[in-house]
Amino acid sequence: MNPLSFNAKRKTRNEKRSLLLALDTSTDKGSLALAEGDRLLGEYSLHSPGTYLQHLLPAVEELFQAAGRALPDLGAIAVSQGPGNFTGLRIGLATAKGLAWALGCPLVPVPTLEALAAQVSFQPHPVAVLMDAKRQEVYLGVFQCPGEFPQAQGEPQRLAVAALPSLLQPPLLLTGPGLDAYGDFLKQHLSPEIVWASPELRHSQAATIARLGRLRLEQGLAVAPQQLTPTYLRPAL
Amino acid sequence: MNPLSFNAKRKTRNEKRSLLLALDTSTDKGSLALAEGDRLLGEYSLHSPGTYLQHLLPAVEELFQAAGRALPDLGAIAVSQGPGNFTGLRIGLATAKGLAWALGCPLVPVPTLEALAAQVSFQPHPVAVLMDAKRQEVYLGVFQCPGEFPQAQGEPQRLAVAALPSLLQPPLLLTGPGLDAYGDFLKQHLSPEIVWASPELRHSQAATIARLGRLRLEQGLAVAPQQLTPTYLRPAL
Repeated sequence: MNPLSFNAKRKTRNEKRSLLLALDTSTDKGSLALAEGDRLLGEYSLHSPGTYLQHLLPAVEELFQAAGRALPDLGAIAVSQGPGNFTGLRIGLATAKGLAWALGCPLVPVPTLEALAAQVSFQPHPVAVLMDAKRQEVYLGVFQCPGEFPQAQGEPQRLAVAALPSLLQPPLLLTGPGLDAYGDFLKQHLSPEIVWASPELRHSQAATIARLGRLRLEQGLAVAPQQLTPTYLRPAL
Repeated sequence: MNPLSFNAKRKTRNEKRSLLLALDTSTDKGSLALAEGDRLLGEYSLHSPGTYLQHLLPAVEELFQAAGRALPDLGAIAVSQGPGNFTGLRIGLATAKGLAWALGCPLVPVPTLEALAAQVSFQPHPVAVLMDAKRQEVYLGVFQCPGEFPQAQGEPQRLAVAALPSLLQPPLLLTGPGLDAYGDFLKQHLSPEIVWASPELRHSQAATIARLGRLRLEQGLAVAPQQLTPTYLRPAL
């Protein structure tokens, strides 16, 4: 084999490895994306509780077809790890683990709250991410997002919605699907100086899972399929 | 008819009117979204040059099916008006106009550069949006985005990529698909203090077209299908 053909082969292999599938089923809004390097090939997001989970694999298949790629081309899988909807997370992770195991490709988990923060990057003030934990509770993550990647400020928490007004003070950018779930209460009890992210940025997009997943792959944070479990947050004592 | 049944009927009508389809085919990346009020029901984005335009109507149909809605439920259509890819814009607008005319529903155009700026809201510094105008030219729009909706600073321009380094000075957030098209040149010739938006936010998302479209509908900016033409920007003299 001469050096040229060796390089050609290596390039093909790198290109193959660069195809990444990202899944987010951490809420009742499912999202999947296919990316090649920095380039997003396609993204499907569906907000239809109770149906997208049944149609996750057909949707993956459609996305591959539309992008003109085949499943064996896949180089890695990134998946939203939670916290979030119990059933959604279990199904999303099971799908990602099954695919990664069958294809023998790296699997990398991405914290859901961090992905939501990453959708509102380059902010001068802290970003608070809220997800619905049901029963008048939320998951809360606080981040600094001066650049492209959020930096967590402390551990994520699970707490009562009623505890938020004393915790959340301006200057602050608020985002996450929790704003939709508890919007009325929050509008009434939070400072009007707190800024709310645009509605379409409050829901996790698989394209962002893909971006953060790629970074984590480069950082060596891939995990074995058997070891991956969803992040559940217990209520604070 | 008693007042109660009248109210029920009116409510149904308002709900029906609140279903909005948004299309963006201004680049080689097509995106469509279905929204009901503030709530995004679904979004498909595909980056597959030369194929998504042929599959625009089937994709619209799929999106309706996945969201459990039917075409006659549609209350309004928002479409990305340009500037952008010549063929893409013509097909996107033709589709939107045909649907609006056939269904008798309002049609509202959204400036593409403004929609791209709206994806990076709440910024302390100006936002410059770049789109590829081919042949080493770009479309440039500059906005202030202190809140949810961008405010244009002057008229959008079409100019040579080579003219950008003297125009674009920090502090500035740079976004738009033009960053991918001319990334190497820009990385080399722009100040390193200029911040680049995250890759997945640089491409127009129909969910944002939906949000801006709804605002424009409320502002009475719907147009007759026959009157809608794409925005083409001539080169500056």
